[in-house]
Amino acid sequence: MKLIRYGNIGAEKPGVLIDGKRFDTSGFTKDYNEEFFAEGGLQKLEDYVKNNQLQEVASDERWGSPVARPSKILCIGLNYRAHAEETGAAIPAEPVIFMKSSTSLAGPYDDVIIPKGSEKTDWEVELAVVIGKYASYVEEKDAMDYVAGYVLHNDVSERAFQLERGGTWDKGKGCNTFAPLGPFMASKDEIKDPHNLRLWLKLNGKTVQDSSTADFIFDIPHMISYVSQFMALLPGDVISTGTPQGVGMGMRPNPIYLKAGDEMELGIDGLGSSKQKAVAYTKS
Amino acid sequence: MKLIRYGNIGAEKPGVLIDGKRFDTSGFTKDYNEEFFAEGGLQKLEDYVKNNQLQEVASDERWGSPVARPSKILCIGLNYRAHAEETGAAIPAEPVIFMKSSTSLAGPYDDVIIPKGSEKTDWEVELAVVIGKYASYVEEKDAMDYVAGYVLHNDVSERAFQLERGGTWDKGKGCNTFAPLGPFMASKDEIKDPHNLRLWLKLNGKTVQDSSTADFIFDIPHMISYVSQFMALLPGDVISTGTPQGVGMGMRPNPIYLKAGDEMELGIDGLGSSKQKAVAYTKS
Repeated sequence: MKLIRYGNIGAEKPGVLIDGKRFDTSGFTKDYNEEFFAEGGLQKLEDYVKNNQLQEVASDERWGSPVARPSKILCIGLNYRAHAEETGAAIPAEPVIFMKSSTSLAGPYDDVIIPKGSEKTDWEVELAVVIGKYASYVEEKDAMDYVAGYVLHNDVSERAFQLERGGTWDKGKGCNTFAPLGPFMASKDEIKDPHNLRLWLKLNGKTVQDSSTADFIFDIPHMISYVSQFMALLPGDVISTGTPQGVGMGMRPNPIYLKAGDEMELGIDGLGSSKQKAVAYTKS
Repeated sequence: MKLIRYGNIGAEKPGVLIDGKRFDTSGFTKDYNEEFFAEGGLQKLEDYVKNNQLQEVASDERWGSPVARPSKILCIGLNYRAHAEETGAAIPAEPVIFMKSSTSLAGPYDDVIIPKGSEKTDWEVELAVVIGKYASYVEEKDAMDYVAGYVLHNDVSERAFQLERGGTWDKGKGCNTFAPLGPFMASKDEIKDPHNLRLWLKLNGKTVQDSSTADFIFDIPHMISYVSQFMALLPGDVISTGTPQGVGMGMRPNPIYLKAGDEMELGIDGLGSSKQKAVAYTKS
């Protein structure tokens, strides 16, 4: 099943994507949130979709993030060997964790706002995992039971905020619109092998990232188990699994960062593609 | 006004504290959450409390965190000069930000669970600020308008997870029960000068932290304005303002960490005191 959300920012409604068409499911659930996942909503939704006549969503309706704002967006840093190398970082001995403010969530075609004063806004195509049930001290062998599904994520990052302003990476990861998710969340059964998916990102039509999740340093069961040793994961929480080489910061001879008007297009096998335009911050 | 929440974990109800007694306000609002603060709930609650006969809460009801789980708990690191010195860190040139998983939220008298495998669980008495309205790119001169109130916080920290496991501090800050908040949230008007409050923490009856918010490196308007440049703050979000010297990690000749049975008691002028017992993790 492919979950989508549609409608204006902050007023999204749930739906499903079937054969490229979006259908409303707000008659079944208010939203794809913690409660939905906790109560086995995915299974029940499947029955609902089978047994009900669904109304198609108008094609001009905005695409929202396919899941509601989660309690947290956790990210694994430097999880592809070649990306760790391009950033000059050592291959991590254990997963690097940082957090993205959940207010950074955005739709797959929303503009990415370059923050005020930013000169180093960068892209990062990632496979994100949506957690299906409460997870604390999960063992690796059981970890896949905690996965609800997968979603495409652009882990937009401001490198100066992240690396040059003191403290943790969190400063450069949580700006508004820095987490475009979608176009859809694929339920776990749709992705046969999440450890063998091609993922790519084009900047203004030119491929800059092109790799495969086969290059993960730490696999998904390890990431889930590892994170759950340090904090509890709630249904609907998002773990983003790291980005491969080809980010702007790693470009040689000189780094390349986003400027207003730049267009990012990104995708992962089985999870569709998304597109965001970078725009300058203007006081709204 | 002093907000409290009471009842079993995950099923807390809202109330107010008047002359040391707790009264239920669940007839007015479902919870002290984002919606409550966003809709001017504090002002309306004041009228409700004046004009209604409130029912006293039974004294054996558990004290919960006085605010509902927020979208985020942000913390400012190393914000007292003497604490930065005891940890061996340089005085920060600008605020250090890290995030505490919101699942770490706990009540003021709940047990603090020493995580599995932990040998360095530590205490940190802090003044926390509760945000009253959406804050993005706030100027320092306006920042106090965004404060709903203040609350006592024990920013419990696992030092090995925080500092020795790679990546950001977030690993050592978000374990379950690592954020006891309360006993109550005082609305802003109750605290005349938040920059001149004594705060203290006793370990097994012996004072280990005893300082004043007068020793802040960065004041509250600066912290709010600063954080809001990097991410949006939502109504009900919590910013914890840092801890003074006297944490276990800073003890000489040797650090002291929590062991099962240890008791922390902590307080801040005008915000009451709380007490937590450290307990070993047991699979529940």
